[in-house]
Amino acid sequence: MKIENITIVGGTHGNEDTGVYLINQLGRGNLQKKWSDLNIDLLLGNPKAYQQSVRFIDRDLNRSFASSELNDLSLSGYEANRAKAICQKLGAKDAPERDLIIDIHTTTSNMGITLILADNKDYNFQLAAYIQKYIPDCYIYYIPADDYSGSSEHSFLISMAPFGLAIEVGPIANGILRHDVNKKVEKVINAALEFISKKNSGVNPVLSQSVTVFKHKKVVSFPTDNTDETHSIIHEDLQDNDYKRLKKGDLIFHTIDGISFPYNDDDEDDLYPVFINEAAYYYQNIAFSLAIKISVNTKTGLQNI
Amino acid sequence: MKIENITIVGGTHGNEDTGVYLINQLGRGNLQKKWSDLNIDLLLGNPKAYQQSVRFIDRDLNRSFASSELNDLSLSGYEANRAKAICQKLGAKDAPERDLIIDIHTTTSNMGITLILADNKDYNFQLAAYIQKYIPDCYIYYIPADDYSGSSEHSFLISMAPFGLAIEVGPIANGILRHDVNKKVEKVINAALEFISKKNSGVNPVLSQSVTVFKHKKVVSFPTDNTDETHSIIHEDLQDNDYKRLKKGDLIFHTIDGISFPYNDDDEDDLYPVFINEAAYYYQNIAFSLAIKISVNTKTGLQNI
Repeated sequence: MKIENITIVGGTHGNEDTGVYLINQLGRGNLQKKWSDLNIDLLLGNPKAYQQSVRFIDRDLNRSFASSELNDLSLSGYEANRAKAICQKLGAKDAPERDLIIDIHTTTSNMGITLILADNKDYNFQLAAYIQKYIPDCYIYYIPADDYSGSSEHSFLISMAPFGLAIEVGPIANGILRHDVNKKVEKVINAALEFISKKNSGVNPVLSQSVTVFKHKKVVSFPTDNTDETHSIIHEDLQDNDYKRLKKGDLIFHTIDGISFPYNDDDEDDLYPVFINEAAYYYQNIAFSLAIKISVNTKTGLQNI
Repeated sequence: MKIENITIVGGTHGNEDTGVYLINQLGRGNLQKKWSDLNIDLLLGNPKAYQQSVRFIDRDLNRSFASSELNDLSLSGYEANRAKAICQKLGAKDAPERDLIIDIHTTTSNMGITLILADNKDYNFQLAAYIQKYIPDCYIYYIPADDYSGSSEHSFLISMAPFGLAIEVGPIANGILRHDVNKKVEKVINAALEFISKKNSGVNPVLSQSVTVFKHKKVVSFPTDNTDETHSIIHEDLQDNDYKRLKKGDLIFHTIDGISFPYNDDDEDDLYPVFINEAAYYYQNIAFSLAIKISVNTKTGLQNI
């Protein structure tokens, strides 16, 4: 198997400037010369939202790639159309023309560099494991479609190719560019392309035997009585503690009247919070997500856990 | 002199949620009971921009309080009207009905807690000095109108009362709330009200003999050949180094093609950068501001420097 047709996307969310800057930067560099065995395509995901410095115009583009919606010509709104235009470029969901997509995102959460995988293909885990060799403090976050949306299929942009990952980097405010953040993401992209190129040439890069993977478990909402005037916020004990184990009784919310609330669920598993206090999720009342920590064998894959 | 009529403002910029949350919080608390000698009024500066989670609708509300514009009934746009509505509440600029305004802001810059003073009245410096007793790592940033805008008059909201300050806190992303940030700003407001109340009752609070003040000097723009595709960014050596001395030759910009640029001005004074990489200033092509560091005697005031 050769992975030759690659699309790197920035600005799938219009206020996450880092990705847009990086695809512009890559476009000005010697990308094609450096990776002559790869056919690399650069894509600005949501140009209209980027122009207005907002996440999206009508709906989240990165939740707009479900087959049913891509096939529904009656849907209106900018992103519903934009998703179809992107399909035209990348190939239909059931007949993809790109082998691998890298989609660059940023977050207001303290998630460092997080490599998001949307399925359990061995190649994706190996790709992530290779990147982790160069950026040892990066995290791998695996989001199975059924655990996330109850559907067998993802509606993420990266679901438009058989392989790929989303890069999530934070904390960084929306609408700004940071030199240090740019450099980190550049390093991830470089490592990814290096891995792909090596594999294509028949070299099997040395990988650690297993990698730690955070597997999405559930979403935690703010208290339901939240209103604009009374809403709870993330408790300072939880803020910035992405990937640090959350235990029953740990404080997670603080109300406007000064009352702190603990995490009260009984869980079978040890859970690790991610996307804590992500700005983009406020409108959906989402406070953070929880993941379980698993180990994935880079040779035998996820099925052997 | 008694300072009795106080207005605390949040959401002058609609995507700086902290201030809005705090005025809601103060409104639910026992503010009036606790400070029974003060008549405290709470104001949501830009409700429409807050609703849309944007800084402003048509123009920056915090640059809309110049007398000429307040008196110009031909001006259209949401903020031009909103400024007039606020005047109706706070009194005309030349006949203010409030004694003091505290305006809560946030920034994506690493400015910690910064107390912004818009004039050199002794009372304001003493107020800031008192707050600094409780929050020793807070900064005092003094912006004279003429140095800032070339006008003898400010167009800031706080210019609508004889006394007051703007609280600037960062770094925090636009559109989010942080428990730790809320607590810090709450502490500043509490110290401010305590100072005012003490002074009103004839007590002269003990203050350190002098305070360090950063006095606005000039604004530094991104290189003028910046376009959406090629723009330079803040160099990582400068990023987050607000209030740390900038010397000629220090790297300040980094271009999309990987070239770093130093600060090249010859200055008479030692200069200290502030508002480094503030998201809101991108559209004006402003990279950061520079201030000189002065010492202000809290008894004899600014004139004796």
